[in-house]
Amino acid sequence: MFNSISSKKVYEQVIEQIQQRILNGELKKGDKLPSERELSEQMDVSRTSIREGIRVLETMGVIDSKQGEGNFICSNIDKSLIEPLSMIFKLNDGTWKDILELREVFELQIVKLAALRATEKDCMELKSIIDEMRKETEIPYNKKIVVLLDQKFHNKLVSISKNYLIESFFLMSSKLFENFIEDARDKIISKYWSKEILFEKHNAIYEAIRDKNPDLAYEKMKEHMEIIGKSYMEATLFEDC
Amino acid sequence: MFNSISSKKVYEQVIEQIQQRILNGELKKGDKLPSERELSEQMDVSRTSIREGIRVLETMGVIDSKQGEGNFICSNIDKSLIEPLSMIFKLNDGTWKDILELREVFELQIVKLAALRATEKDCMELKSIIDEMRKETEIPYNKKIVVLLDQKFHNKLVSISKNYLIESFFLMSSKLFENFIEDARDKIISKYWSKEILFEKHNAIYEAIRDKNPDLAYEKMKEHMEIIGKSYMEATLFEDC
Repeated sequence: MFNSISSKKVYEQVIEQIQQRILNGELKKGDKLPSERELSEQMDVSRTSIREGIRVLETMGVIDSKQGEGNFICSNIDKSLIEPLSMIFKLNDGTWKDILELREVFELQIVKLAALRATEKDCMELKSIIDEMRKETEIPYNKKIVVLLDQKFHNKLVSISKNYLIESFFLMSSKLFENFIEDARDKIISKYWSKEILFEKHNAIYEAIRDKNPDLAYEKMKEHMEIIGKSYMEATLFEDC
Repeated sequence: MFNSISSKKVYEQVIEQIQQRILNGELKKGDKLPSERELSEQMDVSRTSIREGIRVLETMGVIDSKQGEGNFICSNIDKSLIEPLSMIFKLNDGTWKDILELREVFELQIVKLAALRATEKDCMELKSIIDEMRKETEIPYNKKIVVLLDQKFHNKLVSISKNYLIESFFLMSSKLFENFIEDARDKIISKYWSKEILFEKHNAIYEAIRDKNPDLAYEKMKEHMEIIGKSYMEATLFEDC
């Protein structure tokens, strides 16, 4: 049997050419691409195919198409990956357990890296979130603020891990979390909000990071994640009744 | 100040409409989309915009466009995510340490899940890879076979974890690993191949999974990952001299 010589569509070949120049370093962040007319002449393909290729790269977060100015190389992993993941999750009949497990994969390692890499400034920023959490336990709690503080804490942790790949993957998983378990924090906090569960667990994680103790940070995060899984399951079961 | 009413491009609105129907479950895997002409009439936009939107969804792995047959909903996370990640990695001047750390994030949790979920059949399949590894230690080793067995072992582990989201994310990280540290396995195996490092470490992981001991499996994987990180660093340093 013979191999097909090229089953690639024209716009895919356009993408490949641009991709190749990014991967070999010829095209860098901020660079402006030649105009669509020039690209069409250089690659000897229709402007429609050029435009289709550029649209794809734009949606992937690799090209920023500014009206009247042209197409620029950028890199925005958030824009690029979130939506396909949500669709693929839905098309595969994913469950909230899949998402919680994925989240745990990240949180547990992030907290270890954070304990190894937190600077004094990082610790102070983390502490200020913790202080706000403590305040919330002393007054009738405001759910919106608590949800926001929770998010802030976990996002701060990943930025302290200082690995932008892990941060990017974590942000993808967070979007899935927000899109499909959007009311997760809400439900858990409504039903299980208490000093122990939220303030004390987060504070224990913060203290382990401040003390540069990755194993303890891991243990504390694990306890926190176990409570979240259990609480979400109970909150959901409760609702189903 | 007023808010912009719609700064979205037409093709982005086309994507959003299709995406919405996937997310609310109206469109399922295998469903055929209306023809481009029909879509253009229904959405009241040009066929060019319809085609641009469909191209994007095709490259994301959500639509399979079969010539002469039409556009079908599919879900292929591999196709969808690998290439943008590679480009974004390159554009952000990522390093091999970022990738190895990301990989560790997955491997460590995967092995715990695998220890909890491995069926007898899974264990037998894992054991047959281990048996092949053992054989390789008894004869002059064939690098290609060893590299392949190593890949097979790690891919089998993630499938045993039985969470397709984690599997998808792991596959994305594997592609980064292969694209940017493509010679990593090769280098490490050439320089550090020995019974202890490769066969015995993998065997210890296998035994922990067979014995349904997630904490031991985690410890053994951690040791394995530490050797890989150290070996890759040494192999690379050595080469730089």
